[in-house]
Amino acid sequence: MKTPSRIGLTIDLSRDGKQVGDAMLRWSDNGNPLGYHPIPVVSIKGADGPVLLLTGGTHGDEFEGPAAIMRVIQNLDPALLRGQVIAIPALNMPAVHASARVSPLDGMNLNRAFPGDANGTPTAMIAHFLETEILPLCDAAIDLHSGGKASFFHPCALPTHTTDRALAAKNMDLAELFGLPLIWRLGSHNDNRSVNSAAERAGVPMIATELGGGGGVDPQITDQAESGILNIMRHLGVIEGGTAHPPEQRIVEIRDAAASLYATSEGVFDRALSAGQDVSAGDVAGWLHHVTEPERPSVRLHVPQDGMILAHTNRGLVSRGEMLLLVVQDVDQAL
Amino acid sequence: MKTPSRIGLTIDLSRDGKQVGDAMLRWSDNGNPLGYHPIPVVSIKGADGPVLLLTGGTHGDEFEGPAAIMRVIQNLDPALLRGQVIAIPALNMPAVHASARVSPLDGMNLNRAFPGDANGTPTAMIAHFLETEILPLCDAAIDLHSGGKASFFHPCALPTHTTDRALAAKNMDLAELFGLPLIWRLGSHNDNRSVNSAAERAGVPMIATELGGGGGVDPQITDQAESGILNIMRHLGVIEGGTAHPPEQRIVEIRDAAASLYATSEGVFDRALSAGQDVSAGDVAGWLHHVTEPERPSVRLHVPQDGMILAHTNRGLVSRGEMLLLVVQDVDQAL
Amino acid sequence: MKTPSRIGLTIDLSRDGKQVGDAMLRWSDNGNPLGYHPIPVVSIKGADGPVLLLTGGTHGDEFEGPAAIMRVIQNLDPALLRGQVIAIPALNMPAVHASARVSPLDGMNLNRAFPGDANGTPTAMIAHFLETEILPLCDAAIDLHSGGKASFFHPCALPTHTTDRALAAKNMDLAELFGLPLIWRLGSHNDNRSVNSAAERAGVPMIATELGGGGGVDPQITDQAESGILNIMRHLGVIEGGTAHPPEQRIVEIRDAAASLYATSEGVFDRALSAGQDVSAGDVAGWLHHVTEPERPSVRLHVPQDGMILAHTNRGLVSRGEMLLLVVQDVDQAL
Amino acid sequence: MKTPSRIGLTIDLSRDGKQVGDAMLRWSDNGNPLGYHPIPVVSIKGADGPVLLLTGGTHGDEFEGPAAIMRVIQNLDPALLRGQVIAIPALNMPAVHASARVSPLDGMNLNRAFPGDANGTPTAMIAHFLETEILPLCDAAIDLHSGGKASFFHPCALPTHTTDRALAAKNMDLAELFGLPLIWRLGSHNDNRSVNSAAERAGVPMIATELGGGGGVDPQITDQAESGILNIMRHLGVIEGGTAHPPEQRIVEIRDAAASLYATSEGVFDRALSAGQDVSAGDVAGWLHHVTEPERPSVRLHVPQDGMILAHTNRGLVSRGEMLLLVVQDVDQAL
Amino acid sequence: MKTPSRIGLTIDLSRDGKQVGDAMLRWSDNGNPLGYHPIPVVSIKGADGPVLLLTGGTHGDEFEGPAAIMRVIQNLDPALLRGQVIAIPALNMPAVHASARVSPLDGMNLNRAFPGDANGTPTAMIAHFLETEILPLCDAAIDLHSGGKASFFHPCALPTHTTDRALAAKNMDLAELFGLPLIWRLGSHNDNRSVNSAAERAGVPMIATELGGGGGVDPQITDQAESGILNIMRHLGVIEGGTAHPPEQRIVEIRDAAASLYATSEGVFDRALSAGQDVSAGDVAGWLHHVTEPERPSVRLHVPQDGMILAHTNRGLVSRGEMLLLVVQDVDQAL
Amino acid sequence: MKTPSRIGLTIDLSRDGKQVGDAMLRWSDNGNPLGYHPIPVVSIKGADGPVLLLTGGTHGDEFEGPAAIMRVIQNLDPALLRGQVIAIPALNMPAVHASARVSPLDGMNLNRAFPGDANGTPTAMIAHFLETEILPLCDAAIDLHSGGKASFFHPCALPTHTTDRALAAKNMDLAELFGLPLIWRLGSHNDNRSVNSAAERAGVPMIATELGGGGGVDPQITDQAESGILNIMRHLGVIEGGTAHPPEQRIVEIRDAAASLYATSEGVFDRALSAGQDVSAGDVAGWLHHVTEPERPSVRLHVPQDGMILAHTNRGLVSRGEMLLLVVQDVDQAL
Repeated sequence: MKTPSRIGLTIDLSRDGKQVGDAMLRWSDNGNPLGYHPIPVVSIKGADGPVLLLTGGTHGDEFEGPAAIMRVIQNLDPALLRGQVIAIPALNMPAVHASARVSPLDGMNLNRAFPGDANGTPTAMIAHFLETEILPLCDAAIDLHSGGKASFFHPCALPTHTTDRALAAKNMDLAELFGLPLIWRLGSHNDNRSVNSAAERAGVPMIATELGGGGGVDPQITDQAESGILNIMRHLGVIEGGTAHPPEQRIVEIRDAAASLYATSEGVFDRALSAGQDVSAGDVAGWLHHVTEPERPSVRLHVPQDGMILAHTNRGLVSRGEMLLLVVQDVDQAL
Repeated sequence: MKTPSRIGLTIDLSRDGKQVGDAMLRWSDNGNPLGYHPIPVVSIKGADGPVLLLTGGTHGDEFEGPAAIMRVIQNLDPALLRGQVIAIPALNMPAVHASARVSPLDGMNLNRAFPGDANGTPTAMIAHFLETEILPLCDAAIDLHSGGKASFFHPCALPTHTTDRALAAKNMDLAELFGLPLIWRLGSHNDNRSVNSAAERAGVPMIATELGGGGGVDPQITDQAESGILNIMRHLGVIEGGTAHPPEQRIVEIRDAAASLYATSEGVFDRALSAGQDVSAGDVAGWLHHVTEPERPSVRLHVPQDGMILAHTNRGLVSRGEMLLLVVQDVDQAL
Repeated sequence: MKTPSRIGLTIDLSRDGKQVGDAMLRWSDNGNPLGYHPIPVVSIKGADGPVLLLTGGTHGDEFEGPAAIMRVIQNLDPALLRGQVIAIPALNMPAVHASARVSPLDGMNLNRAFPGDANGTPTAMIAHFLETEILPLCDAAIDLHSGGKASFFHPCALPTHTTDRALAAKNMDLAELFGLPLIWRLGSHNDNRSVNSAAERAGVPMIATELGGGGGVDPQITDQAESGILNIMRHLGVIEGGTAHPPEQRIVEIRDAAASLYATSEGVFDRALSAGQDVSAGDVAGWLHHVTEPERPSVRLHVPQDGMILAHTNRGLVSRGEMLLLVVQDVDQAL
Repeated sequence: MKTPSRIGLTIDLSRDGKQVGDAMLRWSDNGNPLGYHPIPVVSIKGADGPVLLLTGGTHGDEFEGPAAIMRVIQNLDPALLRGQVIAIPALNMPAVHASARVSPLDGMNLNRAFPGDANGTPTAMIAHFLETEILPLCDAAIDLHSGGKASFFHPCALPTHTTDRALAAKNMDLAELFGLPLIWRLGSHNDNRSVNSAAERAGVPMIATELGGGGGVDPQITDQAESGILNIMRHLGVIEGGTAHPPEQRIVEIRDAAASLYATSEGVFDRALSAGQDVSAGDVAGWLHHVTEPERPSVRLHVPQDGMILAHTNRGLVSRGEMLLLVVQDVDQAL
Repeated sequence: MKTPSRIGLTIDLSRDGKQVGDAMLRWSDNGNPLGYHPIPVVSIKGADGPVLLLTGGTHGDEFEGPAAIMRVIQNLDPALLRGQVIAIPALNMPAVHASARVSPLDGMNLNRAFPGDANGTPTAMIAHFLETEILPLCDAAIDLHSGGKASFFHPCALPTHTTDRALAAKNMDLAELFGLPLIWRLGSHNDNRSVNSAAERAGVPMIATELGGGGGVDPQITDQAESGILNIMRHLGVIEGGTAHPPEQRIVEIRDAAASLYATSEGVFDRALSAGQDVSAGDVAGWLHHVTEPERPSVRLHVPQDGMILAHTNRGLVSRGEMLLLVVQDVDQAL
Repeated sequence: MKTPSRIGLTIDLSRDGKQVGDAMLRWSDNGNPLGYHPIPVVSIKGADGPVLLLTGGTHGDEFEGPAAIMRVIQNLDPALLRGQVIAIPALNMPAVHASARVSPLDGMNLNRAFPGDANGTPTAMIAHFLETEILPLCDAAIDLHSGGKASFFHPCALPTHTTDRALAAKNMDLAELFGLPLIWRLGSHNDNRSVNSAAERAGVPMIATELGGGGGVDPQITDQAESGILNIMRHLGVIEGGTAHPPEQRIVEIRDAAASLYATSEGVFDRALSAGQDVSAGDVAGWLHHVTEPERPSVRLHVPQDGMILAHTNRGLVSRGEMLLLVVQDVDQAL
């Protein structure tokens, strides 16, 4: 698709200093026919150096990342920076403003909208803008996700294990430097419509993160996210100081989609296990209570395979097909 | 209003044994003109003895209570019971089916709908039914709440400190027997439209509970709720066995509404404190980040008064007026 | 409530001749702040004589009645009339315009809104207007219902069997004269919020009708309704001509609410029986297929009691509590 | 209804100086269970003197009044004030935040909700709060309305012509002092559910205003509103300075509801006349074009009675019953 | 588009025996971010033999087909089968669960979504899955439709009269074997976005059906559908037994779109004719009553051309452009 | 895209005389599965001559254009015409019927939907129909817009300044003949998804217009639009008579998007300037009042660059990014 992005910026990313402006998403609808939907962009640029992209709000109900980015950018002094931070704390701003995973303008999930379309609906326009206008400017990128209202993830960083071994190694470096004890490695089967896939196409070292969830903001996890961003900035040399990360980090992957547990009918899921736990096939995962038909016996659910629980649902009443437990396995690092 | 309830039951609560049926809420609308909206009711009746009412789902997005009730009723054998358990695990079933605090049929909050109205909208009809048809049959009642999707409560039991000292003492007994380390005493300023107020009017010993929240179901808290119900059943003699509760239970109350913290503008609330913490006036409560206008400085918020955090919000993007931290004080037991 | 109706008329019902105008329902909302919601009213008045009220559209998805009324009023010549016909073919016009049972303005069912409220929401205002302004003018009334989108009734007339024996007899006369082979007698347990109850309070002889349903308009049933109206007009002397009705008319009543069949869970109801059939307890009523969980066996449902099927559901996917078959019994005319 | 208001204030209206706070409308719903919906209140209190209430946003799509109030309160210095200004620029804040005439929380029109209900839905709670808690504190009140999105009014002040002649005279004084060339006198037939009626019941001199409309904010009309408020403040002695008003002010009233013009069917109203024009019965008012059925001839509409056009619709596609032209007559001042 | 389907199956269609599982439609939205929307699939596989596909719920408000499929699959014993039945009783499950023709997830009509798109919205994903993953496995297919809530069809089978004469003949064989007295032959002008067109592209012999409608389930028509499926299974040799069909079957087609009747304005359609009737040009089709403007005379509508009524609307209040009567002509079998 | 339009016409545009019919937009949804959504088309054809296309309702909340077209077509006698007028007064009829800028069927803006898609959603189907079926028949076209509910434009005509100089000159001729004192020249940067771009691709001389706005219909502007259409018809020779236009017409263009003013935060925009005014950089444009947080000072906004105000917002409460003032510059006609 050769059409250039229809999204312009009110600031000039090549200028030095601290600037706050908008990516102008023009989508003419009933309420806003001649204006734009704003996606705030902050640029903090100092001496020559690498460019780091920080994005939050790819899903609009994941607030730990936006909070950590807002902390970081308010404390950065461009005079002390070597390089540039481009921060977009609410990338899918229409979704963030609605506290919703997907955009209220078109119902789309931005993390399944890449490479996007300059002539598409708003979410496709944002994806296209990020992939064609922003990622090519960057030397590294962190896209901060969490579990959102509907799920809770054990905090982790997500590097893509691309076939480009050099890029894969840089991704893993970022993941280690983010400093969380858990790394969830995305394999080649990762969806080619995500921010991770866009960074891979652009050849930009990048990690996503999962930072808890449930719809709110947990103090400890936000602290960890802020630390992780600063550690990576130090690693890149954007700010001064030494880097550190835990000596032992566990690396997991989804080896078999059938290892996870999904609801088999509508009911209240009375969960027995939590994200972060190691489990064995057959462990009791919880009960599905049929509150709409209490004469129907509750169903006891079991863990399908050995592994670790990466995420659990944060919903009480579930429907058939909803994810209850996401089960992952350790990466065999001998391979 | 002398009109009798328009809600009938498909089971006969005076019969022995285990019965599962519906309270038939007749509300003729576009989809269901001649049928009823079902509110499942389970009656388990053994030998003569006291009648215990268990209700969950007064708010439809609080699932720990319904889960605990479903566990209990599936394990009860009427042959071993002395007395009766009447369980309504999803009292505001239309709300539970929508996973929503308030009823999708009329937008009303059942816990602000008592004493209800037989000729009113569905939520008022349910309130009226409970107050006029069910509570008068009961010797004790437990109404299981939690924080729902929007908030998280430190788990506690809620007895009403009524002016009827005998009833107040029985309420406190139930709260202690429920076994959680925290008791939130509701004073005379408690809203007269709640289930607690209905029980007070009916002279029935009763507690509510707050059991976590956030929209999901936490395994540890559900275990505690199940234990609490069984302990109270043993205390009443409905089932056999000795009772127990922690030697030390903290009792708190809302002494001053101005002790709590509310959002002052729209923003992402980057929370620094959590339910269960003791706090002093002036402690940093968190930051409000203006993600829609990042050029506007973030606001640091402070705890208004000394006390303990009973609940924190579980929402990321908040609006002016939303509760951020609910701060309570210890009851002065000398009084 | 002594407030007079806030609904005015653009025509003067005491004037002779044919007039078409509106009852002006003033409900100031976002779209229509200073105007009114129109409820068209047609008055056709000739020489002195009785006043007959024809209403349709009490529920907005029942179209056989409005169609029959529109046929009748277009063929009436006031010069040939002895008395007056007041026709309101779409009494709950906001609901009719939305093709919905209940009003889109307040979600209320007009046939459960009497005696209404001059200061209430729109449906309550309409009920109050009919009860206080229109019914007192009338000598007889016919309120034409059918099953609507969600159900299908075997066509019948509905007289109220009031404790005022003279009025009850007049109601039954009207039911017989309407000419359908089936009469559904409403007993003292009939809901006191219906048009029938309003007429009873006003002492006006009146029938309702049920005329098929399913959301459309059946040619044969509309013909029967038109004939029934004209026959009653002849009986009252409003138009000339002899009256007739079938020699044999079956009279039924709901003797026991538990005779009817309701859905026990969500599923596709594969119906085996139809309105108008005589049934015996235990007859197979149909099957409930769990299309969302095909591994759950379908449930075979049975008729609860002997009787006749007055109505069957017209919905495919049903939820627990929805009416599947409405079963009635013959009135014991010896009583 | 003796229940006191359930709406509290975060500021103390008896304190001196400038305070900004909230009336806390507690309405527990899905998003905001434990917080409140804020209705900002500004109190500016100087030396002893009369209390003037300024309200805007009674309807949420009328912005000229809120704009004028915001101008006034930002320029007032409590040290220079004799008396107090209580300003509530967005009285129905939930409606203002939705840019909608009626509240998104309950669909109700605040200007038809008085005297309100402490236990009612949000709009009834606000009405009750204003009538029981705020109006009794006041010596004069101005409630600033305009035509909203759906209509445009020739700017005017609205005093109530109450049967209490002294109060009626004070109301008329305020109307003259507001300074607009047109005064629309509300008679005894004015609706008893409006802010004007609440002020009448409270015995508080008061005017409403109509300030243009159409959904936006007109610079000239906002200037006039600001001047009018300041002139009344000078008249009351709250601020210093002489008062003035035009020597000639026209006074009109609605003498006959049938003088106004309403749409007779759905269509595009091609308006030929505008608010402020004098008209004679029979003047061409415009055309109704049936754009959905262009084969149906357009209808030419005529002015029903002599008078002046007080307001015209601001809607293009209209439905039967919508107000097209509001026609008023001059008050016969000899009476 | 070369992307393979993103919809996986929880069962292995190549395995013998009876399996029930889901096609996992992964569409990450606000409620279900990490799970899938289930489309239940039943596979019953016996000895080697042909594969028959049964689909229902292509439109979510057509329940006769799903009911018939559920009857059939619960009675099949894989041990007695020669070949395989793949049954998808609710192909557009999100639409079926909403009792709606089109998907609530994207508003699309599945029968106008073929060949679909693996990267598209949910309805496009389902179409792509059926066309690329399921149809290529099949030797014959039956897609069971009916009129849905909005219309009623005279029951019939729909073979496509493709230009591939051999395939067209097999299609006609299936139509005859389905056993209904009426066959509606789809010509080359049939929409290339339907299931029929997908089967044509795949070279799979196939019929659709129309089985009544109106939103419910008619006992007689469901019986006919069940018989038709079993007869085709016998014909294919999947189950044992002889086949039969009526000696005379009428074959019709849409020869001229202008033969059908559409509403010319909004009104209540008082229908005079029904599906299944033979008609002549000029016959009275019914009346359009303008209940919103009763002063506007009702319009008498006429049948445009000679033919047979294949379907009539099941809606009472219609708008301009809605189908009222679908008129077809007999196929000239000499051609 | 080679697929021909799926939209048919009920009239034959090549026939002489006056015909009224529909473009049949077939979009099968829940309410209208087998009918079509009507887009009324009027053809008035006389002696041989040029074909003029008149379209209104490209946006559904712009009513001045449809009103002017309805006036014109009701007064045209085909016997007096040399050529043909094809009038589509409500091109996006679904949007017009909803009084909304964008289509309620797909949420799309028709003026950003060209060249459209025969297989797309309804708005794309309409765009494709106009571009492939109607524009190729025409010798000139006028597409009548105005500001809609959300904005107000100083009335003007909009010719495209294409690189095809001959076509550009013809466009400018039409703009001059339309007779408004202001011409807004669209440059090469104009959006290639508009009606103007479609006409440019088709090589058809064409203007759009902006005719006020605000959601209603202004009498003077509608008169001007009617005159403009008739003047162009005389110019083309379709009707007889001499043409005229003002001797001086101002020509403006958008030279720099940054010359316009957009809201920087949510608030009530208290506008100080109006469409049609000449402005200088730094002029006070108005104030943004934070009515939701009155303690936050109001913001004074300034005009960014010298120029003329082409349009102002018609919204009171605005959000960041909404257009407040659209500022244009005079075309340098020496170029």
